[in-house]
Amino acid sequence: MRESGSIKGTVLTKLMEPVLPFGILQDAARDGGLTRTLHRQLRTAIIEGRLPPGYVLPSSRLLASQLQVGRNTVIAAYDQLVAAGFARSRPGARLTVCMPGAVELNAATPATGPARADDQRIAAQWRQPVQRLGCGVPFAARSFRTGVPEHALFEHEIWRRLTTRALRAAAQQPFHYGMAQGLPALREAIAGHVAAVRAVACGPDDLLITSGAQEGFDMLARLLVTPGVTRVAVEDPGYPPLHAALIAAGAILVPLAVDDEGLRADLLPDGVKIICVTPSHQSPTGAVMSPARRAALLARARSLDAVIIEDDYDGEFLYDQHPPDALQTLDRDERVFYVGTFSKSMFPALRKGFVVAPRWARDALVDIKRTAGTNLDLVPQATLAAFITDGHLARHIRRMRPVYAQRRRAFEQAAQRHWDGWMQIQPGNAGLHLSTRILDPALEDLITGHARQQLPGAQPLSVYSIGSNRLPGLCIGYGSAEVDQIAQAVRALAAALRLS
Amino acid sequence: MRESGSIKGTVLTKLMEPVLPFGILQDAARDGGLTRTLHRQLRTAIIEGRLPPGYVLPSSRLLASQLQVGRNTVIAAYDQLVAAGFARSRPGARLTVCMPGAVELNAATPATGPARADDQRIAAQWRQPVQRLGCGVPFAARSFRTGVPEHALFEHEIWRRLTTRALRAAAQQPFHYGMAQGLPALREAIAGHVAAVRAVACGPDDLLITSGAQEGFDMLARLLVTPGVTRVAVEDPGYPPLHAALIAAGAILVPLAVDDEGLRADLLPDGVKIICVTPSHQSPTGAVMSPARRAALLARARSLDAVIIEDDYDGEFLYDQHPPDALQTLDRDERVFYVGTFSKSMFPALRKGFVVAPRWARDALVDIKRTAGTNLDLVPQATLAAFITDGHLARHIRRMRPVYAQRRRAFEQAAQRHWDGWMQIQPGNAGLHLSTRILDPALEDLITGHARQQLPGAQPLSVYSIGSNRLPGLCIGYGSAEVDQIAQAVRALAAALRLS
Repeated sequence: MRESGSIKGTVLTKLMEPVLPFGILQDAARDGGLTRTLHRQLRTAIIEGRLPPGYVLPSSRLLASQLQVGRNTVIAAYDQLVAAGFARSRPGARLTVCMPGAVELNAATPATGPARADDQRIAAQWRQPVQRLGCGVPFAARSFRTGVPEHALFEHEIWRRLTTRALRAAAQQPFHYGMAQGLPALREAIAGHVAAVRAVACGPDDLLITSGAQEGFDMLARLLVTPGVTRVAVEDPGYPPLHAALIAAGAILVPLAVDDEGLRADLLPDGVKIICVTPSHQSPTGAVMSPARRAALLARARSLDAVIIEDDYDGEFLYDQHPPDALQTLDRDERVFYVGTFSKSMFPALRKGFVVAPRWARDALVDIKRTAGTNLDLVPQATLAAFITDGHLARHIRRMRPVYAQRRRAFEQAAQRHWDGWMQIQPGNAGLHLSTRILDPALEDLITGHARQQLPGAQPLSVYSIGSNRLPGLCIGYGSAEVDQIAQAVRALAAALRLS
Repeated sequence: MRESGSIKGTVLTKLMEPVLPFGILQDAARDGGLTRTLHRQLRTAIIEGRLPPGYVLPSSRLLASQLQVGRNTVIAAYDQLVAAGFARSRPGARLTVCMPGAVELNAATPATGPARADDQRIAAQWRQPVQRLGCGVPFAARSFRTGVPEHALFEHEIWRRLTTRALRAAAQQPFHYGMAQGLPALREAIAGHVAAVRAVACGPDDLLITSGAQEGFDMLARLLVTPGVTRVAVEDPGYPPLHAALIAAGAILVPLAVDDEGLRADLLPDGVKIICVTPSHQSPTGAVMSPARRAALLARARSLDAVIIEDDYDGEFLYDQHPPDALQTLDRDERVFYVGTFSKSMFPALRKGFVVAPRWARDALVDIKRTAGTNLDLVPQATLAAFITDGHLARHIRRMRPVYAQRRRAFEQAAQRHWDGWMQIQPGNAGLHLSTRILDPALEDLITGHARQQLPGAQPLSVYSIGSNRLPGLCIGYGSAEVDQIAQAVRALAAALRLS
């Protein structure tokens, strides 16, 4: 965890015109040397988005003179940035900021003109590739990727029948452009669904249909973030595509640690205006936020006058007898945006999700949706509305809950037998994925290397880390992996490592 | 038309932190008075987005002291702004900037907390409603709304059959998240389609699938606009939802007049970096850009080193024997983004469009799409791919061209008989709509008033104007209006006005 205190010493600047922090010298003596302090502050500025990907750093000579330090100090700090993947050097050119992970994905696509990083026609925040989850992992019918539900148990026949019905109804209607907010019948159906499943009380007017949860994040970032000004607390480790949407909107990210009860609400520093959180099932660690932590988080949000973005991406799959209430349910002062998706309860390629928004934000959110032009295709919306209203979704979820819970148990049992002593499954009884902790950090590379073979689609936890809170471990999906496959893979990983 | 020269006298400032122009006094003597000059400069700043909707203007006392003019001068200029709809006053509060048109749509939705315009939690650019086209017009099965194609002649049965086929194929596949760029089979099909219809040469990798043309505009604005810096030439009159996307991205709009040959390329001022244009069929006037004007526009874009956004929203429906080439086809130096849509050639609620992007911008554009999370539903993409590949789209377009051309001729013939002497249809032989010019501007209110009854869905041209280039006239869609209905409506309007 980076200490939130270090932000205060620096000059917070705009994303659009980033300048370097100037509070360096004051901290230097305390923190062990100028080079280390400068490197840490630059790195913090990059992580928080104040120095966005694509930003060209000043020459070492210029910065040294501005900071009144030796040029070698700056060169050494720059070298460390490059080594850690936070900056990119090219012969004859100045250093360019990038995010680690992004660099590895920089595809060698032929393009005319300047390289993307230097192309002034492209807005600065898009000059470096955006980090992708699971990129490069070969596609497997059944894999350990997170977020992929079971395909064989979905009632494709019913879906097909309802689609045909929706098409016939649409063919009777004159052509028209749909409502930006989403088909009223679908909003009505979803309002009933989230009330039943998560006790989220809302009407069809409080909802906006999105293309999955990610469009919800992007729209909320556009709605709530003033570039270079708004400080947004995010979970660390957390969900990189959410971070990408926030950074694109110009947010200053404030990464906060998570523990077995979820986000460390006690660490929330002053000045934070948005808190992004996955209380039902922390992404990626899998922790379920305790009721006490939920109350503390809401109280702290109130004292900060901050809004909360509650990402309930697999909230239909809580296996405890009495899962805690959603933050939206507990909210008493219109503070919580509840983001849901049908990617897990239905299927990802449906691309349907929704945002339940407080009333004060609703009209502006619809305007963003209209401006973004991402009104959704009428027929899939009508089909989903019928699927929910006719009771098929509730039945499907009831059928899938024990299936996924059983797969989770299969992982736990096999891990206890084969991984004991070197890797543990983290607590959490929900969703379609789990995370592990590697007990001896020295084994991390070895284990993640073998996991690539034996648990295809599983990710090192480090890809979810944005600050220095890098937990050694794996993030493993079991939504599309069968019980036998799970037992075999757990055994095979142990065998490959010769540790069991 | 506002003169581009007046920009130079003002301080161009950031969208995020707008300040008022300070070059006022220099121009005052020349332009006839301080009040008029101040009003004009404020209005220009609002139109160009330098003073965004929601911005709270300084008190008259403060501004008067800053500018060293009398307070009455400022109060008079502010009063004119309010009268013209560029600012909103409320008792006890300072004036708030808004865009005309937007104000009228300010729905009286109950909301807790502060009014939207004052809510600091909402990013400044979304605190005022976004202008909507056709808002408030009651929905009619067959109307004169623009952009609505004929519903009765679409082959719904084939579409249903292909959807079922796509659903069956999808049910055989494991679940997965689609590609942000769009389904490869659909990109392949569209590449073939635009090559055949518009001689736009591209491969599937040059294309990105969008949710209609509007998502293309929004993505390109995010890609290319640096807030408060990038100057974007737009047609005036032009398409308001495009302007909304540009303003949301922080663009400085530079409205340029159009004539019978389309955008006045000769008026393009220095410093413009993006040129937005509808050469196939100017939106809303209907003018088809001449080959000479196309060449001049490309040459001017080259000298400005600007990119062009070519909105070819109904380019499948050009009724001249030899319609001019698309700008994308004529482009020799990767300058043109070609935006297409299936809203007219198929149907609007399909929400499918595409952007053909130069290679240098492709990867960044896909990153924006991935970050925005608006990957599209797999099945409608697969269905559309099959519809195109199997030849149904080409056949449908061939069948619809004479239908729409005939409706256009029906309008022209009836107008010649009934509107002669007071309203003319503007030249242009393409698309699903036309525009008219009211010959005596004094009759504008009377005519648009009666048109609301007799041509439901038609819009006054003034809703498309952003600068002072307000043409008296109407914009009338004939995509969903039958020949008999057209003749009758034209006659009825004349009868209502007792002018024929």
